[in-house]
Amino acid sequence: MKQGNLLIVHGGAPTAVINSSLYGAVTEAKKHPEVEKVLGAVGGTGGMLKENFCDLSAVPEERLKLLLQTPASAIGTSRDALEPEHYAAMAEICRKHNIRWVLFNGGNGSMDACGKLFKACVAAGVDVRVVGIPKTVDNDIAVTDHAPGFGSAARFIAGVTSEISQDVRSLPIHVSVIEAMGRNAGWVTAASALARTGSGDGPDLIYLPERPFNEEEFLEKVGDLYRKKGGVVVVASEGLTGLDGKPIVEPIFQVGRATYYGDVSAHLANLVIKKLGIKARSEKPGISNRASIAFQSETDRDEAVLVGGEAARAALAGENGVMVGLRRAPGPVYRVETFLIPVEQVMLYERKMPDEFISADGCDVTDAFVEWCRPLIGSPLRQFITFKPTL
Amino acid sequence: MKQGNLLIVHGGAPTAVINSSLYGAVTEAKKHPEVEKVLGAVGGTGGMLKENFCDLSAVPEERLKLLLQTPASAIGTSRDALEPEHYAAMAEICRKHNIRWVLFNGGNGSMDACGKLFKACVAAGVDVRVVGIPKTVDNDIAVTDHAPGFGSAARFIAGVTSEISQDVRSLPIHVSVIEAMGRNAGWVTAASALARTGSGDGPDLIYLPERPFNEEEFLEKVGDLYRKKGGVVVVASEGLTGLDGKPIVEPIFQVGRATYYGDVSAHLANLVIKKLGIKARSEKPGISNRASIAFQSETDRDEAVLVGGEAARAALAGENGVMVGLRRAPGPVYRVETFLIPVEQVMLYERKMPDEFISADGCDVTDAFVEWCRPLIGSPLRQFITFKPTL
Repeated sequence: MKQGNLLIVHGGAPTAVINSSLYGAVTEAKKHPEVEKVLGAVGGTGGMLKENFCDLSAVPEERLKLLLQTPASAIGTSRDALEPEHYAAMAEICRKHNIRWVLFNGGNGSMDACGKLFKACVAAGVDVRVVGIPKTVDNDIAVTDHAPGFGSAARFIAGVTSEISQDVRSLPIHVSVIEAMGRNAGWVTAASALARTGSGDGPDLIYLPERPFNEEEFLEKVGDLYRKKGGVVVVASEGLTGLDGKPIVEPIFQVGRATYYGDVSAHLANLVIKKLGIKARSEKPGISNRASIAFQSETDRDEAVLVGGEAARAALAGENGVMVGLRRAPGPVYRVETFLIPVEQVMLYERKMPDEFISADGCDVTDAFVEWCRPLIGSPLRQFITFKPTL
Repeated sequence: MKQGNLLIVHGGAPTAVINSSLYGAVTEAKKHPEVEKVLGAVGGTGGMLKENFCDLSAVPEERLKLLLQTPASAIGTSRDALEPEHYAAMAEICRKHNIRWVLFNGGNGSMDACGKLFKACVAAGVDVRVVGIPKTVDNDIAVTDHAPGFGSAARFIAGVTSEISQDVRSLPIHVSVIEAMGRNAGWVTAASALARTGSGDGPDLIYLPERPFNEEEFLEKVGDLYRKKGGVVVVASEGLTGLDGKPIVEPIFQVGRATYYGDVSAHLANLVIKKLGIKARSEKPGISNRASIAFQSETDRDEAVLVGGEAARAALAGENGVMVGLRRAPGPVYRVETFLIPVEQVMLYERKMPDEFISADGCDVTDAFVEWCRPLIGSPLRQFITFKPTL
């Protein structure tokens, strides 16, 4: 049996369970005698190009298990734009370090890198199997039903919206605008609706990037709700665009090719204050939306371990240029199966919320979405208690 | 034995453990045969004036226990400005409903209300005992070592800073500015330093409202750190003021007597982008800082139950016009004792961070603060794992 090393590389923004997939991959790879060492690229593709590796197979099991509760990427990650020469260099690095299997854990961009490295290795005559592990906060990866990382981000936004709603209802003097992750796809924003499943209260309005934002209608709805209930809770995607298709927030600065925009939540809160004269505040959990271990969904974590293990198994079985996907098994009880998807089918394609998951008025979700999303967030959210006047 | 009802009123912004004090007070009051009913004012002092009451003594124990995990105020709260005639009306409401004991749970403003109701009852010849339960997010209540609500807010900011820092270090491409609660007192902001106690990384810079903010020095420090480490984590109080004593953020709107300011975190992130050309983002957990049950400190929760129970006991023992305080028992192991403080000593006095808790350069805390704060956040934060290149 030809022996070699297996390398795991993380790409793009981390999630609450990317390290769980790492745990699954390392654990599976260690079972295979043809694997000499399981290496981690420290610092993503940039780290791989610098040959910055760590030996994950040498880590004792009790330390390795900490991966299941460590947010962010324990081996680092990167967002470097890669050119053809970088893929050629990576192929040579695999040859040099006897790396025969590469697992790329990432989103759409990383699946693109996965496909390109696969081709570069073929072109250079280096015998490397490249398999993708899906990872997302936004849930915008195509073909797969969902991908690890989303369930925890969804649980986070549902849990935080539930707690904030409870606060706003108990001191109903303002409009609270919560900003959710997902610039182009509204899956995370939409998941705030699951705050309603507990006894805690949920959001009043949900604004998704899949629908153009109408400022006039927004102010009318918020004003009506405020007069009726006092406290109002709005959840908005960080990437809302107006009727003209442009971001509703002004660009604040240009650095190189990147444009920086202000915060959507602050913008909407300011609109409410200035145009309605109603007290408003913004809540922008920001990075916590993808890094919260307190709101890690155990279902998401278990599925992350599963796809990590499956990716290692697939690569070691000789699969190449594929990503592990998840689909729901038939039947009334939620259960997933893995399957392999050619990376060309997922590369750089952004999956958005379908129409049947968005309410007709465009500022809420449908029951179909709630049913689809519920199993992904794991165990039910905490139950709260509220008292009404009884005497 | 003269029987009567005991009323509990919540005032001001809620915390993660105000309901735990409610639980402690109800549980203690129910043990006393002279208490007919334990009433909750639904909606704070405003609810009391409308005679909106609920009967908390009729709630089964297993339901009542949900208070320990319910954020915000389960009986509602208010921030109404009260005039002398309101206190006179409250005294009459006590007479009408045979309320012989009133517990006010709140911060500095509520202790003021506590003192005024006590005097109004004496003036009206209504036999009511009024006792205060301290509650704070900001930890700005005088005389007591600390007050319930702070420990959980501190645990929240430490935990979130730990997770965000882990994320920023794993993808070190930007400056992240986290905004903490506490407009005039920096206790919560300071508690972010406890993120450093875990294996996760902590904040690089901590900006407290007790020190004037120097924009030039801030940009110099951030630029230096960014060149050295890539990712930089800054924690800033929502109430920072500049060298001129004015808020560093522009007022965005005036509604009546209230002025609304932009978000400090967004302002600082924008400064970094515009003046240094470095990618920066803001994270503003906002209300989550006071409403997170996931980060509720069990020490804080237990102390909240304790002071709630003590307040009921004190009122029923005939104490009047006092607030229950906490002090540390002597000895190397953290343990608190309760004591009673005349409300005049705490009314409307804001306690700020003392100089010995702030580092000499003004953008960090001292070890003395960390030692003081550590027991309040409860059990140690989650341990994380990070790998460095080893090959």
